[in-house]
Amino acid sequence: MNGAQALIRTLVDSGVEVCFSNPGTSEMHFVAALDTVPNMRGVLGLAEGAVTGAADGYARIAGKPAATLLHLGPGLGNGLANLHNARRAHTPIVNVVGDHATYHKAYDAPLESDIEAVAGSLTGWVRRCSSTADVGADAAAAVAASQDAPGRVATLILPADVSWSDGGQPCAPVPPRRAKPVADTTVKAVAELLRTGEPVALLIGGAACRERGLRATSRIAAATGAKPFVETFPARLERGAGVPVVERLGYLAEQVAHQLEGSRHVVVAGTRPPVSFFAYPGKASDLVPEGAQVHTLAGVEEDVVAALEELAELVAPGTEAVVSQAHRPELPTGALTPQNWVQVIGASLPDGAIISDEANTSGLLLPGATAGAPRHDVLTLTGGAIGQGIPVATGAAIAAPDRPVVNLESDGSALYTISALWTQARENLNVTTVLLNNRAYAILRMELQRVGAEGSGPKAKELLDLSGPDLDFVKIAEGMGVPASRAATAEELAQQFARAVAEPGPHLIEAMVPPLL
Amino acid sequence: MNGAQALIRTLVDSGVEVCFSNPGTSEMHFVAALDTVPNMRGVLGLAEGAVTGAADGYARIAGKPAATLLHLGPGLGNGLANLHNARRAHTPIVNVVGDHATYHKAYDAPLESDIEAVAGSLTGWVRRCSSTADVGADAAAAVAASQDAPGRVATLILPADVSWSDGGQPCAPVPPRRAKPVADTTVKAVAELLRTGEPVALLIGGAACRERGLRATSRIAAATGAKPFVETFPARLERGAGVPVVERLGYLAEQVAHQLEGSRHVVVAGTRPPVSFFAYPGKASDLVPEGAQVHTLAGVEEDVVAALEELAELVAPGTEAVVSQAHRPELPTGALTPQNWVQVIGASLPDGAIISDEANTSGLLLPGATAGAPRHDVLTLTGGAIGQGIPVATGAAIAAPDRPVVNLESDGSALYTISALWTQARENLNVTTVLLNNRAYAILRMELQRVGAEGSGPKAKELLDLSGPDLDFVKIAEGMGVPASRAATAEELAQQFARAVAEPGPHLIEAMVPPLL
Repeated sequence: MNGAQALIRTLVDSGVEVCFSNPGTSEMHFVAALDTVPNMRGVLGLAEGAVTGAADGYARIAGKPAATLLHLGPGLGNGLANLHNARRAHTPIVNVVGDHATYHKAYDAPLESDIEAVAGSLTGWVRRCSSTADVGADAAAAVAASQDAPGRVATLILPADVSWSDGGQPCAPVPPRRAKPVADTTVKAVAELLRTGEPVALLIGGAACRERGLRATSRIAAATGAKPFVETFPARLERGAGVPVVERLGYLAEQVAHQLEGSRHVVVAGTRPPVSFFAYPGKASDLVPEGAQVHTLAGVEEDVVAALEELAELVAPGTEAVVSQAHRPELPTGALTPQNWVQVIGASLPDGAIISDEANTSGLLLPGATAGAPRHDVLTLTGGAIGQGIPVATGAAIAAPDRPVVNLESDGSALYTISALWTQARENLNVTTVLLNNRAYAILRMELQRVGAEGSGPKAKELLDLSGPDLDFVKIAEGMGVPASRAATAEELAQQFARAVAEPGPHLIEAMVPPLL
Repeated sequence: MNGAQALIRTLVDSGVEVCFSNPGTSEMHFVAALDTVPNMRGVLGLAEGAVTGAADGYARIAGKPAATLLHLGPGLGNGLANLHNARRAHTPIVNVVGDHATYHKAYDAPLESDIEAVAGSLTGWVRRCSSTADVGADAAAAVAASQDAPGRVATLILPADVSWSDGGQPCAPVPPRRAKPVADTTVKAVAELLRTGEPVALLIGGAACRERGLRATSRIAAATGAKPFVETFPARLERGAGVPVVERLGYLAEQVAHQLEGSRHVVVAGTRPPVSFFAYPGKASDLVPEGAQVHTLAGVEEDVVAALEELAELVAPGTEAVVSQAHRPELPTGALTPQNWVQVIGASLPDGAIISDEANTSGLLLPGATAGAPRHDVLTLTGGAIGQGIPVATGAAIAAPDRPVVNLESDGSALYTISALWTQARENLNVTTVLLNNRAYAILRMELQRVGAEGSGPKAKELLDLSGPDLDFVKIAEGMGVPASRAATAEELAQQFARAVAEPGPHLIEAMVPPLL
């Protein structure tokens, strides 16, 4: 058994069943080994951003890691932005980066580069496989490391000769480090705080954004008057009818200031205290209201769900969670607007949907329109590196083939990783992409004002404008093998969305929505 | 004057006239400042690989750097593969990476990451601007550093507050470090070697691949019997009628072994001794023939052209260079093949063309077909990171608006940076892309065999196959605003190519060429 075979067998034995791949010559033995190990599925991406984003989306839904297969330093670079998003999502990923043979590195061949430096920027776990005999153990360690609470990107650098040489040995699974329990005294201290009746904001994140955490949070809020919030960009947020609604903290500092106004205490659970996404001249980076105290119920490495449930037992023993009632907007009519397209989604979202949300400014009104829709998951842009939406939808669809995936995408973000559409077509994935085309980097037009940038004229405007020429996403999608249509009215969007969801395989709808701002 | 204005003014004063940009919020003051500084052109790319590749192509033709504008660590990551290619090409680039405000970094906001680590992997020059007063001096130093012989990527990390604060001062240009002269004794020693009559291979690279270097090399070879070769992947190679033809060293180790067979000495000038692109089981990485001695006439930081001319004066004082005669293939007919499409290009290449060559396996027969075509430049895939061709063509066209640019592209490579087509359309660039579509990663099919990977079956095949679904590059290009057509026969390719070259603005021709191997 060669190293590649031992590696893949170990991955499978450790529960890793999918390898999102964009291989090159140095990974050919890994590719060949796929056929010798049943139960490992290879999924081709045509660029690495599609590969790493898909691995992120897969794990957010599957609850366990996929592997990637990337080609040396440049392949890792191409995949870095979506690995950054995965890092912020605490997504477990076994990130396999092929490298030159050990003895070949000294020759500084054209593709030689410092893979460790780039992988190290992910502040996760990096190991270079140095011998074929150990590659199985390295793989088992990587799978465990990726799942160490709260989850991370574990990078395994695989030299070609370690991969092709004989003498590989599969290794048994290694248990990951579980979330640490929160000390009773910490839970009790927060309970005491809540009982004082002082104004408290309770900010939850991570695993607390799933139903159990939301339910405990809702009970605590209902019993104590604390104002509950979900972190701005949760990796996976459960929503819809029957699920407690907890408002997300806003993207804009101004929104957050409004949301947290009057709070004397901010309790964080499974996340960190709120900070501004960007700095703005003369505005604070720290969004905790002035004079308010921060208390940590559970850090990101701790068992936040158990802590919230214990806290709920202390302060809200008889209180029920307040869940969202089933209700949908009416189907709107007329030309598409930032207001009515979200109503179409709210009215039409299928049961059990997974939303990959990269609608950015176009999606600001979405949460209200979908709160009473059937139960669904929302996967958000955790790290702020655009180009996540299409790949994450792709990976989510592979993790949950029986669930409809809806990718709310924007024109500015779509081009970074557009080739992931092709993977959706190849794998016949049930993904409906609604591409909101406002022909601009609309968020940057807003930000240009918000940062107080003076003197902006025609050159600046041109750098934020996506018309001239207009992008035609119907043609682009069809060119990638995905059936596509264009909607200019709410009726067209509703009709096309219903058909896309009903038919198997991927579809793209280009929704011509004017900018919100 | 704020920091951004001082930075841009300094760039312009130092001769940098174009900034290829994909900005975000932290770069908004830089964007706004563009309108306050005449003579700096902002060119928008819709993904960072398009931006960095364009900066590479621009400088290879302009002979001076462009700037980039990238958005924090993820933007740098997305642009890293083409910066890697630029590094291998010794291309001067002033790589501006925006970052959070200095005081904002401590908050570890979602887009925070280790930019220095990623930029450091480029082994170039990295500086973080720490004060507005110094940003002009930092910019002047970066321009100089980028042009230090033989050229490199100089990364300037620009915090948002350094950019937006007042107190910036433009700085006068700083002279770069010129190429070191080669010692007379070195030139004389090589002359002595050549006079012995022993079999010598003379391998040139870098600046020697332009006409002066080729002319000197040709004279030396004609007078002494040395076998001359150009490095495998030159950044810019002059070719065509009236230019001396020097054969390129092959990509495959087997080719190189054949080319260097019998050489007792390998003299390198402006490049390094030949090494295998990848390692292969049981094959040597070092491609210098066994027992042959290596001699360095000029290292990559030395003035290789002067050294070759001095050497020619010593060993070939009365000898003329052997230049290529004007001759073109006949226009072929019939279904497109790997053999005949290159004849169409050879027969039709316009005068003064710039070829951005990422044809990969489809282009193996190109050099023979174009040797006698009108004088042209070829820009090759210097670092092996695919996704270079379209962006490099884009930048080259901006550097030389009066020259026709021909991008020979392949289906596997095109998808990495396909959005650069949109930039060609927006800037109305005279680029004709011939996209060789063989519906496969054909080079990897070959490499799968060459590395001796065993056990490859259906899963491996699927990872190297680009059909299912077929990519339709006509639709993709049209979706990006580039007129496109499809050619299945040589006659169609010839007709469409002639029209594309004659009409202003970009065109794409999808040439359906079966795999060579």
